[in-house]
Amino acid sequence: MRIVLDAMGSDNHPAPEVDAAVEYARHYSEPLYLVGDAPRLHELLGNRGQGIEIVHAPDVFEMSDHISPGSLRKVQNSIGAGMDLLKDGQADAFVSAGNTGGQMAIALARLGRLRGLKRPALSALFPVSGGRCAVLDVGANTECKPEYLLQFAQLGAAYVEQVLGVKNPRVALLSNGEEAGKGNDLVKATYPLLQASGLNFIGNVEGKELFGGEADVVVTDGFTGNVLMKSAEAVAKLITERLREEITSSFITKIGGLLARPAFRGLRKELDPAEVGAVPLLGINGLVFVAHGRSDSRALLSALRLARQSVEVNLLSSLSQAIESGLAALPVETA
Amino acid sequence: MRIVLDAMGSDNHPAPEVDAAVEYARHYSEPLYLVGDAPRLHELLGNRGQGIEIVHAPDVFEMSDHISPGSLRKVQNSIGAGMDLLKDGQADAFVSAGNTGGQMAIALARLGRLRGLKRPALSALFPVSGGRCAVLDVGANTECKPEYLLQFAQLGAAYVEQVLGVKNPRVALLSNGEEAGKGNDLVKATYPLLQASGLNFIGNVEGKELFGGEADVVVTDGFTGNVLMKSAEAVAKLITERLREEITSSFITKIGGLLARPAFRGLRKELDPAEVGAVPLLGINGLVFVAHGRSDSRALLSALRLARQSVEVNLLSSLSQAIESGLAALPVETA
Repeated sequence: MRIVLDAMGSDNHPAPEVDAAVEYARHYSEPLYLVGDAPRLHELLGNRGQGIEIVHAPDVFEMSDHISPGSLRKVQNSIGAGMDLLKDGQADAFVSAGNTGGQMAIALARLGRLRGLKRPALSALFPVSGGRCAVLDVGANTECKPEYLLQFAQLGAAYVEQVLGVKNPRVALLSNGEEAGKGNDLVKATYPLLQASGLNFIGNVEGKELFGGEADVVVTDGFTGNVLMKSAEAVAKLITERLREEITSSFITKIGGLLARPAFRGLRKELDPAEVGAVPLLGINGLVFVAHGRSDSRALLSALRLARQSVEVNLLSSLSQAIESGLAALPVETA
Repeated sequence: MRIVLDAMGSDNHPAPEVDAAVEYARHYSEPLYLVGDAPRLHELLGNRGQGIEIVHAPDVFEMSDHISPGSLRKVQNSIGAGMDLLKDGQADAFVSAGNTGGQMAIALARLGRLRGLKRPALSALFPVSGGRCAVLDVGANTECKPEYLLQFAQLGAAYVEQVLGVKNPRVALLSNGEEAGKGNDLVKATYPLLQASGLNFIGNVEGKELFGGEADVVVTDGFTGNVLMKSAEAVAKLITERLREEITSSFITKIGGLLARPAFRGLRKELDPAEVGAVPLLGINGLVFVAHGRSDSRALLSALRLARQSVEVNLLSSLSQAIESGLAALPVETA
């Protein structure tokens, strides 16, 4: 098995990537591809380079890069070069903390979609009461059709079943009311498709049920999902910051805060995206994992482990099967 | 000035309503209408009835009630009877902790919309860094057109300016990216309307800017807004509950939690919907305030004060002017 790590992805690249690669190579016997500015990487690696194969691709993908299908097939930034290793069969999974939208665009151009898939999705693993919930799409498709959401559900269910080990995952549809019949036009049209899908569809959920841990997979359009994800992060940040302000506002509460510190640390760990490591681009014909831009070496190592585990359980084949066996449930094309 | 309080609205009605009415009547010289099951209300009031005028309307609006325009004009539940007092010019504002959707439907049927308004909106006041932000629509219109969002912005700006005293409020559009050009089709089509609106439009915002306190009014469609509102509540609940669990998990952290209790209390107060009291149905031709179903007498009293203040600043006329003077900015009807 070979994993590819983009060395130019994180906000502080390439140092965290280099450290994560060294740590990975110490634990596992298969070599790791590290893609980026070779001289710089050699310098940072020093004598720690055992088990790491450097691929020279010094360009960094910038959000301002002009995105056109033609340019995406040609660019030789570290993301493009890394994905080419997957395409050419030289590697099994790609990990990068680079820009998510850029990775999705390049992955679509270089690796393409799973057969029969309408649209790939970005998924996120939300910390919820008692565990994690996969939410998708969180940003790849701002406008969605019901059949996209059906396929997101198929992808999400296969992912949490294979990688998180959740048997018969509970799939739900994000809506503005729990009752069947609630929702915007998209939700109302998606509901019967999910009912007939053969998935363990539990109906509509609101934030209460989602964060209450009542579903393992929640599907929504990429606009709503993105707003949800960013707002949940912002609320968590607001609360913890305000609590810190309140606690440091008096001597007594400050003492209390110091004593209660392990509790805060436990919660912070739970809410920390680094604990998850990375999320897959679901629906791409290749295993691509996106880590947070703020990832440190510890988060990147988690991401590499997740990628490794996904290869081990043959995630790509499960995803592909989920889509192919679900094609019969798709409505007849109307447009 | 006369305020109407629905006595049958809150989850524990009518006791909290009766207590709030008594408290209100003690402070203000104008009488208050209390609408509900008269014998029950007289019994609960006992000798505290001074300044309170009871209007008999024993029926409670139930979510299961069949909602049709005809039935909405006829029903004599406490909401319908209370709103009729506004319609007949006998009162200036209506407050109820009853079902929001029901109130909106009955208000539309009984009081109608402001002249020139496409759709009324539900607004919510979110606790954000440094203050409050009015978000609308949070549930009245699951499918929206760009001109609805423009009018939501006009209503929201007039509301926070008049009632919260925010001068030249910063208006923003909720999107999946800050940059102009980001968003779903609705957001992209709304952006130029807001730019040309004469409002203090600051562009797109994500959760980070919203909860960071960078806008005073944020507009979105009622589906996304409802998901946002309920999810923000659920995240806040999840974090505070998990923190409580973590704190009570060891003796030391428990002591710390006790000492830090004032800090938690401060934060809880900040996040407490009861502190706001109620939110208006914006765009209805009458001042209707919706309090939380879980409201206690303290929250209902806040709601009555808010209603009173809104009458004092002549909110209805400001809202009406905002819509009328904004009509020129509406795009030519295409459908």
